[in-house]
Amino acid sequence: MCLQENNTMKPHFGKIISELRSSIGQKFIYTDNEKLEAYNFDGTDLRYWPDIVVEPENRGQVSQLMKIATKYRIPVIPRGAGTGVTGGALPVKGGIVLSLLRMNKILSIDEINMTAFVEPGVINLDLHHAVSEKGLYYPPDPASYDTSTIGGNIAEDAGGPHCFKYGTTRDYILGLEIVLSDGTIMNTGVQTRKGVVGYDLTNLIVGSEGTLAIVTKAILRLIPLPARTITLLAFFSDIQTLAGDACFQNDALDVLLAESSEKRENLWAVRRKFRDLIKERSQFKFSEDVTVPIRQIPQLIEGARKIAAKHEFQNYNYGHLGDGNVHVNFTHHHKDETIVRRSESVVRELFELTVKLGGTISGEHGIGITKMNFLEIELSKKSIELQKKIKQVFDPLNILNPFKIFPPE
Amino acid sequence: MCLQENNTMKPHFGKIISELRSSIGQKFIYTDNEKLEAYNFDGTDLRYWPDIVVEPENRGQVSQLMKIATKYRIPVIPRGAGTGVTGGALPVKGGIVLSLLRMNKILSIDEINMTAFVEPGVINLDLHHAVSEKGLYYPPDPASYDTSTIGGNIAEDAGGPHCFKYGTTRDYILGLEIVLSDGTIMNTGVQTRKGVVGYDLTNLIVGSEGTLAIVTKAILRLIPLPARTITLLAFFSDIQTLAGDACFQNDALDVLLAESSEKRENLWAVRRKFRDLIKERSQFKFSEDVTVPIRQIPQLIEGARKIAAKHEFQNYNYGHLGDGNVHVNFTHHHKDETIVRRSESVVRELFELTVKLGGTISGEHGIGITKMNFLEIELSKKSIELQKKIKQVFDPLNILNPFKIFPPE
Repeated sequence: MCLQENNTMKPHFGKIISELRSSIGQKFIYTDNEKLEAYNFDGTDLRYWPDIVVEPENRGQVSQLMKIATKYRIPVIPRGAGTGVTGGALPVKGGIVLSLLRMNKILSIDEINMTAFVEPGVINLDLHHAVSEKGLYYPPDPASYDTSTIGGNIAEDAGGPHCFKYGTTRDYILGLEIVLSDGTIMNTGVQTRKGVVGYDLTNLIVGSEGTLAIVTKAILRLIPLPARTITLLAFFSDIQTLAGDACFQNDALDVLLAESSEKRENLWAVRRKFRDLIKERSQFKFSEDVTVPIRQIPQLIEGARKIAAKHEFQNYNYGHLGDGNVHVNFTHHHKDETIVRRSESVVRELFELTVKLGGTISGEHGIGITKMNFLEIELSKKSIELQKKIKQVFDPLNILNPFKIFPPE
Repeated sequence: MCLQENNTMKPHFGKIISELRSSIGQKFIYTDNEKLEAYNFDGTDLRYWPDIVVEPENRGQVSQLMKIATKYRIPVIPRGAGTGVTGGALPVKGGIVLSLLRMNKILSIDEINMTAFVEPGVINLDLHHAVSEKGLYYPPDPASYDTSTIGGNIAEDAGGPHCFKYGTTRDYILGLEIVLSDGTIMNTGVQTRKGVVGYDLTNLIVGSEGTLAIVTKAILRLIPLPARTITLLAFFSDIQTLAGDACFQNDALDVLLAESSEKRENLWAVRRKFRDLIKERSQFKFSEDVTVPIRQIPQLIEGARKIAAKHEFQNYNYGHLGDGNVHVNFTHHHKDETIVRRSESVVRELFELTVKLGGTISGEHGIGITKMNFLEIELSKKSIELQKKIKQVFDPLNILNPFKIFPPE
């Protein structure tokens, strides 16, 4: 399928490169080691090398790329900023990494229709700034909001702290322009809040981790900029008490209030440091974004502690409790093969508990490759079978971000 | 495919009935004229007779029904209250009408998780009452809210006046239990606001007009009951001035304010009478639920008036302007074949204008059979091709509400 897999790409390599160069343009195609190295990673610790990197600047070039990829059956791995933490943007068996970073234009913002048309490479934070200048607001704000792209956010249905109130990326995508695996450029969805014309292909693409189509334009729904923002930091000794209503009524140890944007940043800085602080204390750390109905949060955390104790790991939990999304962290004071192997049991037991509690094994990070082997804990065989058939409808040659989401048979 | 189509059902008719009776239960299967007549209509003026009516009371019976339908390749047409206005619930070529009205239990309401588990036959208004007793709110409120079912609302992604602020049915469906065409019972989605595990089958089912699967349970997302509701009725002389901000600043002729629920009902009664008043004035009336970005509403209404004038129809417009959903009504003082034929040109021109303005030919009513022949105005051939393949994935024998949405080839 590709150079690193079974060498079917190898005899055609020169031909493929020259076709890419002549149809897309010399300067958009890279095969030098420096560039390949710049695209061999993501937010995981894993590394996989692409054979070719393509950095197009318009949808026509993306379409051309897919036609050539179809002709030679080469994997194409679409990629935004590479901040994903489940390996969705990794070229696990080589092929072409398609970087969408150059397609980073905010094409239009309409204050009356409260919509924006954007290219996939637009950085989330840049969009926030641009729309807030017009009195509008785009709520999804993943932790990587200052580097991650709207295209990547769409691929993973990114969440963030504001999603408790406002919903995830999915809730703000009205329509898409996509390029299919055969190179067809197509539109899905609408520009309006309502629309029931055929099946909802837009929501099918959102969260599909780049496996069904390449997004080349998105129509975003915006809302009026909130008049006021207040941030609270509250301390509790006991998770059981937290599941109730307000903070002090429920034995909060302390509550810090931030009304200025500077103080707000300070509070968030504390929250953002959790990850590093946990990492500093250990040799080996892994974290899962499991999500349960909020009534079940105490049971999840209690269960996570038991699983950690059983396998002799340490356990730290934080996250977006308002929507039941707990970042469950496990650490160990050293790292060796036995510990790594044992960590798989920890993850499996955590996921089984999560699903038993009515939850989901991924609230906002997706499946990618790191959660692939646990998919059957949440989804039935029939559901996976249907989804694989949908993948085939969109990508019959299995060239679009292959070897993701679904475990190999 | 069925009795009325090509008689392949006819030789097996007795066998089918007896298999249905023995596996589902004698008292759930009907073939008497009275019952068949009770299910031969919907919110359109069209009539199509089913061959058999099944009224199951649980998912196991639905599953049994689909297994028998698969064996004999009989069309099954799922149906709620039959209030749809595009023919989605009509047995256009006979077969079995599957009424879900007996599956009308609200299974649970969870105030902390803010979710409800309901069967498809629950009436929208009954759900409203039940959740509001617990301080919760389910926003979708189609005009038929006092009779239509949640299952039907899901099939058509029903909207309503509150959708301007809160979104449509889609935005409140977290997960589903469905029965596939082969009888498999399957779950989709989550119980939480976040979740990125595989493709979004839930949103694929919502709005699919009963053509992909039968919903036997829905997990609904609820929100806190709004503390206060205010209803305004405003009068304008000119649509151009209405597209701005507040009412009086924009030359409203008058604004009526209702703060009590009684006065609110009075205002809505005026709005609900529009339809009857328009009907009273004419022999022939048709109405389309086109939706455009709100900036384009004046152009849509101006265009509708021109189209009406050109073809010598009268034109009346009202609707949900906040989300661009205009109910464009055309009437004629008498009805004959020429007028009916001419009305098709009126609809086609209106739809072409709508799509040209960035809008959609159906905001909340769906395609069913009445808009089938206009589908290509909005969707590309490739999009329709993909959607038909998705239909095949779910329903390879084409027995689940066939001959809907997609025009025959």
